[in-house]
Amino acid sequence: MDSPAGFFDRLRLASRARSSLLCVGLDPSPEHLDRGADGALAFCTDIVERTHAATCCYKPNAAFWEQYGPDGWRALALLRARIPDDIPVLLDGKRADVAPTMRAYATAAFDALRMDAATVHAYHGSDSLREYTRYADRGVYVVCRTSNPGSRDLQHLLTPDVPLYLRVARLAASLDTNSNVGLVVGTTAPEQVREIREHHPEIPFLLPGIGWQGGDLEAAVGAAWNGDPASCLISVSRGVLYADDPAKAADVYRRQINDVLATSPAPRSAQ
Amino acid sequence: MDSPAGFFDRLRLASRARSSLLCVGLDPSPEHLDRGADGALAFCTDIVERTHAATCCYKPNAAFWEQYGPDGWRALALLRARIPDDIPVLLDGKRADVAPTMRAYATAAFDALRMDAATVHAYHGSDSLREYTRYADRGVYVVCRTSNPGSRDLQHLLTPDVPLYLRVARLAASLDTNSNVGLVVGTTAPEQVREIREHHPEIPFLLPGIGWQGGDLEAAVGAAWNGDPASCLISVSRGVLYADDPAKAADVYRRQINDVLATSPAPRSAQ
Repeated sequence: MDSPAGFFDRLRLASRARSSLLCVGLDPSPEHLDRGADGALAFCTDIVERTHAATCCYKPNAAFWEQYGPDGWRALALLRARIPDDIPVLLDGKRADVAPTMRAYATAAFDALRMDAATVHAYHGSDSLREYTRYADRGVYVVCRTSNPGSRDLQHLLTPDVPLYLRVARLAASLDTNSNVGLVVGTTAPEQVREIREHHPEIPFLLPGIGWQGGDLEAAVGAAWNGDPASCLISVSRGVLYADDPAKAADVYRRQINDVLATSPAPRSAQ
Repeated sequence: MDSPAGFFDRLRLASRARSSLLCVGLDPSPEHLDRGADGALAFCTDIVERTHAATCCYKPNAAFWEQYGPDGWRALALLRARIPDDIPVLLDGKRADVAPTMRAYATAAFDALRMDAATVHAYHGSDSLREYTRYADRGVYVVCRTSNPGSRDLQHLLTPDVPLYLRVARLAASLDTNSNVGLVVGTTAPEQVREIREHHPEIPFLLPGIGWQGGDLEAAVGAAWNGDPASCLISVSRGVLYADDPAKAADVYRRQINDVLATSPAPRSAQ
């Protein structure tokens, strides 16, 4: 069976097939693993084998592979080929540069590494972002409100009427001519998740920060979910990777998320 | 002779030794070159051999190497080892993520690839940036005002009293406890170069956008230069790489910059 052309349609299929909104971050750490990039590849391959029944998307963060040097990029390319065909893979690289440079980054993510989606920063503006969004069959998540303490340093500045993160959301939404644009919104700030959802009822969210960073799963899912399986992609990395039983941990997260959905009034009906 | 501990001191030495403020961007393009990553490596090695007498810093942009996939990263690591020891190398990657992820990016840039300096985005705030600035012997250029048309989409928003790029500059300056923080300021916006220099008289600038992007060399150098050889690092990529005679092109840029300095009243004396 051919997979749908659009990233978010592929994500919806994978989500429905597994009754899961869980995205597992594939972020190997040399502090936890030995044998360098080979060890990272073996570890993450094992994680995929243990967790794919409960996972609708995998999200390798480029940083954790780059720290191994060139061997890390080779391991990442091999890992990507080992992920089941019906589960989309999202490269979390948060790239941003002038347009000709963004074109090269998009080539790296979408052609060289064959990723289904990628994260980007909006600071360079629309001409930069369009180098990613013009790939109509790939997804583009624009970093909007991050999950870390320093997020308030710039993202909450009033510009001059609304906070910067709402300007970023507006810019991202204005580029969504291919129905392939989403937003990264941290679960550590459920008030902002709700506010951004109010301004943008339909745009898909990628929600990191659950687990080690202390994100609020219940509040964030409740605020983000709009009934669309692509609306609320919950990312967990260390909470699955370094659990005693990663398969069980992924399934527990999957069910916790679904429990929140069962009690959330969705603004529009499930698709 | 041991090289100085700080990046900007190494940059000043290289600049004085060559009477040059020219930084050459090592950004190979598959449209101009064949033989994939091997061709890119051979081409850029040749560029270094032809231009090092006129160049005080080399700046590979990560995107142009990543577009070749894992082979590109291997080529970049080999290229780095071929650059003369007394010329610092700046990895233009513009990374930004939460702190543990930035730590992995910093490991990639400073340990795995042994770069002397790197570019970063400030959107994640201070805890993120500190993962780079804590490397006291490496330089960190924070992207402040970019050279592309979309730069006005977010960077000029009033926040609420000053434009966002001045907030970014202020945040970067506040993290300069190791004297290793600079700003990326595009030469296409000499008014902003002047404004940022007025607010931050001492911070080193990296100034891209000369050549293909149409930056104003004379106005930007005149506005950025403060008499410190590290204050005004002018980056040129395509204008050198794809010149008929790269050695001559680099030397012409070097002299054009010096001609501007000769007529610029520096706010403080040359060091």
